[in-house]
Amino acid sequence: MLKELPLTEFSTRLASEQPAPGGGSASAAVAALGAGLLIMTCNLTLGREKYQDAEEDLMEVREELEPIRVMLLASVDRDSEAYDAVIAAFGMPRTNTEEKAERKAAIQSAMRAASEVPMDMARRAGRALDLASIVAGKGNPNALSDAGCGARFLEAGLRGALYNVRINLPSIKDEAYVAEMTSEVERLSQRADEAMAKVLAIIESGL
Amino acid sequence: MLKELPLTEFSTRLASEQPAPGGGSASAAVAALGAGLLIMTCNLTLGREKYQDAEEDLMEVREELEPIRVMLLASVDRDSEAYDAVIAAFGMPRTNTEEKAERKAAIQSAMRAASEVPMDMARRAGRALDLASIVAGKGNPNALSDAGCGARFLEAGLRGALYNVRINLPSIKDEAYVAEMTSEVERLSQRADEAMAKVLAIIESGL
Repeated sequence: MLKELPLTEFSTRLASEQPAPGGGSASAAVAALGAGLLIMTCNLTLGREKYQDAEEDLMEVREELEPIRVMLLASVDRDSEAYDAVIAAFGMPRTNTEEKAERKAAIQSAMRAASEVPMDMARRAGRALDLASIVAGKGNPNALSDAGCGARFLEAGLRGALYNVRINLPSIKDEAYVAEMTSEVERLSQRADEAMAKVLAIIESGL
Repeated sequence: MLKELPLTEFSTRLASEQPAPGGGSASAAVAALGAGLLIMTCNLTLGREKYQDAEEDLMEVREELEPIRVMLLASVDRDSEAYDAVIAAFGMPRTNTEEKAERKAAIQSAMRAASEVPMDMARRAGRALDLASIVAGKGNPNALSDAGCGARFLEAGLRGALYNVRINLPSIKDEAYVAEMTSEVERLSQRADEAMAKVLAIIESGL
């Protein structure tokens, strides 16, 4: 599994002329590192008398972030698998009308899946990013740079995931589906703008 | 070495209550993944007749990006080592005036090193980010989302590295040094703004 590769090897595979793993898998990895840093900031705060007032909120936030981190790590592989399925569909035989129709349907279905995997990453990364301002605002100020890194990585992973959704959409024929996905890209993107404005205000005033 | 850890294990260690590895090491990792994706985009372009006009430029860009990628991966460990040295300096004995003076000097020197490691990452990530618009503009358009991810990750790694510089500076007593570092943070930050504006214009118009 890609997520079990050493960091160096994952980076080398990304850099290779093989298109997978590519930006989608890497977006999942980067967002997972971001979620990890927000969790670390919670862990460096919880149980310390000095930050008692933040205890309840950060406990809740940590509980919500951990499954997001695990899901994002799983998406490292999920994204490459979805890409492989697209390639496999393109490789299907097309010697007669029936085969051609089957191949076309398989491509369409694989393309949808290849858009839904990064969309789902973007949703989860977006939720984690919403929580970043709580972590930065209530967390141990000695870890403020870590919370800032966490937010930046979640944002980068989210934007990267949305690029991967967008590059697939022109190949999908179902117009209603494409319109729905396009409007969700827009919504997630705007929500990320707002979440970033909030957390960066805290980071910039604290550093 | 941290850079040899599986991605999942690196993410778990980040999330733990141990402050190292933290945001600095993760910034190096994220930026290295970004450099890797720009290199992949070059590799998906070079040697293809269709993109012959880009051949010379992207060959040069790839040659410059590869050592940056390797340096960023090395910084994953370098940053945690620099942090460990700070902790070791704080742990030095201080039972008499001489020991106190030695400890103080060791802390100052370790703090400088802990600021210089992320500053150096930010410089290299910044250089790679300058090249992102060439990769996005001249690279294989099928890999445009990968180039976009590459730019986003380099930016996030760079901003994260600068947070790590900034959180250390208040502990450094040498005012001239702090002023110089602060102005370099500002310069790198502005250059990143400009590089991002350039590359995002290409990504947004192409996706």
